[in-house]
Amino acid sequence: MRVLGIDPGLSRCGVGVVDGQGPRAGVVSAGVVRTPASDAPARRLVALHTELTALVARCRPDAVAVERLFFNANVRTAMGVGQAAGVALLCGAQAGVDVVEYTPTQVKAAVTGDGGADKAKVGYMVRALLGLTDVPRPPDAADALALALCHLQRARLATGDGAPSRRLADAAATARPGAQVVRRGRPA
Amino acid sequence: MRVLGIDPGLSRCGVGVVDGQGPRAGVVSAGVVRTPASDAPARRLVALHTELTALVARCRPDAVAVERLFFNANVRTAMGVGQAAGVALLCGAQAGVDVVEYTPTQVKAAVTGDGGADKAKVGYMVRALLGLTDVPRPPDAADALALALCHLQRARLATGDGAPSRRLADAAATARPGAQVVRRGRPA
Repeated sequence: MRVLGIDPGLSRCGVGVVDGQGPRAGVVSAGVVRTPASDAPARRLVALHTELTALVARCRPDAVAVERLFFNANVRTAMGVGQAAGVALLCGAQAGVDVVEYTPTQVKAAVTGDGGADKAKVGYMVRALLGLTDVPRPPDAADALALALCHLQRARLATGDGAPSRRLADAAATARPGAQVVRRGRPA
Repeated sequence: MRVLGIDPGLSRCGVGVVDGQGPRAGVVSAGVVRTPASDAPARRLVALHTELTALVARCRPDAVAVERLFFNANVRTAMGVGQAAGVALLCGAQAGVDVVEYTPTQVKAAVTGDGGADKAKVGYMVRALLGLTDVPRPPDAADALALALCHLQRARLATGDGAPSRRLADAAATARPGAQVVRRGRPA
């Protein structure tokens, strides 16, 4: 099963694609979609829609996992994040792909076993679960991969294949710092 | 100048199109786009995108005015509203139309002269400014028309044609209660 995780945002939208079969999972792609702050919000949303639609067409995920937002977090940026989340959900559904929202607590619990885990612990576990040599950077890309892993775990539990994820020797891909959507081949 | 006002929402998205030349303004279309609460959010956003895109293509507005949200208002519904706002902004920009956001305070001040006006006063003034026999219903449609009038007023001020809007005898159109996007011809 291939899952695209999206950590929505206008300035930085994290995207991460993982491929998993049973407890095995590897990175297909990870990075960040950026839109210039100098552009009008509506134009930035069009750019985001174009990029995400292209990513879905290229990676052909079986599901899209989007972070479910809480707007009391930061009122100043919440408007842009909510709008970006709407466009992310739209892109997945327009492509006919299952779209699921997960709260940050659900993602942290799925990846680290602790719904209150900090960013460093989430990054550490994303690296471990995907067999990467480094924590994916920037953090938005790591968060997007965590979202994808969260959905993969839930899907496994739903189908009864509930074995815990293990670090894979054959998924030694490393996310590149500042990468602008890095594509990778499917793991063996 | 023709303006489409959008009061975003997933359950009820108000839409209102006004046509204005100098101080004259009339209703072209007013109503509400509804999406079923039983559908998944992503599917509802696709339905909203389809409806709004069709409305823009049909009415060919020169500008789209979208309500700018404050997420501290109602956290429970704010997520859906923010996502719907993102899709509304996207639709306008995808059609190459100017898209502008206005806060509720800006809209109330433009239509009633009082940024703290209540819904009843806004509805009353929308009726008066557009020469309608009744206050447009449901309230989401009236709010969308107010957004469109707000942009029309700002555009007039920007071009120096700052005469105040007057009630038009020739714009006697009446918004129908519960209308599902009521189309009307351009005013004479």
